[in-house]
Amino acid sequence: MPGLTIGDTIPDLELETTKGKIRIHDYVGDGYCIIFSHPADFTPVCTTELGMMAKYAPELEKRGVKLLGLSCDDVSSHKEWIKDVEAYTPGSLVTYPIAADPKREVIKQLNMVDPDEEDASGNQLPSRALHVVGPDKKVKLSMLYPASTGRNMDEVLRVVESLQKAARHKVATPVNWKPGDPVVISPSVSNEEAKQMFPQGFDTTDLPSKKGYLRFTKV
Amino acid sequence: MPGLTIGDTIPDLELETTKGKIRIHDYVGDGYCIIFSHPADFTPVCTTELGMMAKYAPELEKRGVKLLGLSCDDVSSHKEWIKDVEAYTPGSLVTYPIAADPKREVIKQLNMVDPDEEDASGNQLPSRALHVVGPDKKVKLSMLYPASTGRNMDEVLRVVESLQKAARHKVATPVNWKPGDPVVISPSVSNEEAKQMFPQGFDTTDLPSKKGYLRFTKV
Repeated sequence: MPGLTIGDTIPDLELETTKGKIRIHDYVGDGYCIIFSHPADFTPVCTTELGMMAKYAPELEKRGVKLLGLSCDDVSSHKEWIKDVEAYTPGSLVTYPIAADPKREVIKQLNMVDPDEEDASGNQLPSRALHVVGPDKKVKLSMLYPASTGRNMDEVLRVVESLQKAARHKVATPVNWKPGDPVVISPSVSNEEAKQMFPQGFDTTDLPSKKGYLRFTKV
Repeated sequence: MPGLTIGDTIPDLELETTKGKIRIHDYVGDGYCIIFSHPADFTPVCTTELGMMAKYAPELEKRGVKLLGLSCDDVSSHKEWIKDVEAYTPGSLVTYPIAADPKREVIKQLNMVDPDEEDASGNQLPSRALHVVGPDKKVKLSMLYPASTGRNMDEVLRVVESLQKAARHKVATPVNWKPGDPVVISPSVSNEEAKQMFPQGFDTTDLPSKKGYLRFTKV
């Protein structure tokens, strides 16, 4: 079925948004971008999500991450709906653009179609798809959630921190990792290299295989 | 690029696993199944993940959810590696099957390829892909994470609860929802129907649009 997955370059589409026309690659620029779809304006989960996205936007911005929303409603609908979004989540200001895809051209290309949902006219609707796009314009990570499941912005922030740590250091983040927790050193780094790269030191976990591959450090 | 996405039926492949041969549809049965890939045995993040999956398995089982792991290592490697996995996470017992895909046939079909990783021989490696498959054998939700980002089992449990609540009632879960929090009533349910379906009552949030679409209840 639809195509876009991790590792793919996001298509450089021109989008109509609440902030005017945007080309995706220009918008991503040299930073990261979270492009996410919502099923429809004036619907319950979406209203809670877009306000929370706005609340988290400053934390994301500190990390060089922009937000870009998208649904199949038109720009005038988005603008009316933002009043509800901001009213529901006090202190939220939707300063990020929300794109309009009434012709369903973008959602197909970005793997954002919800197969189980349609509008009153039988048109396709977007899922809750979320792609984290890196400075190289490639999809680094995707969450494909259905209309019924609102996203978890703490998880979104967690994976952004993980991706950025891995991009800066030769490390990865273990299961259930939270920002501030120790990270693991990539297997491609030898112990000799690790001593240079991580002068703060590292701890190797003793395992039955004695292979010494599980090395924790702090970065 | 590769295909499988939410709404698609998972291919009914026969897999070699640590628990013998398994056909995916038989294994899913009438319940849910989380099929997830890991890049490689005897690597750091994977070792932390598979032990944690084992720790969460009883909670998932209570909800009718089975686990099925997968990488491109062979079954004998998996069996050796499980000793490390269980040693690292005390109290974990890897009772779920781990499939072997040394020919890279399965990871392509299941959209589990990590485009940025390869083994010492230049072969493709799996990403940290995770698909929640429902009793109808369709993919309900996917997380496509790269090798660097270990998954969050609390988020996995959260989305399972959300999917199952939505399958049982005409509800959805708002942003950052946690089990026990109020849910929202689907827009397809009229207020009259909602009174019948939710005798415990519901609260309609007052929003600038006055459209009355944001209705919270407990189920």
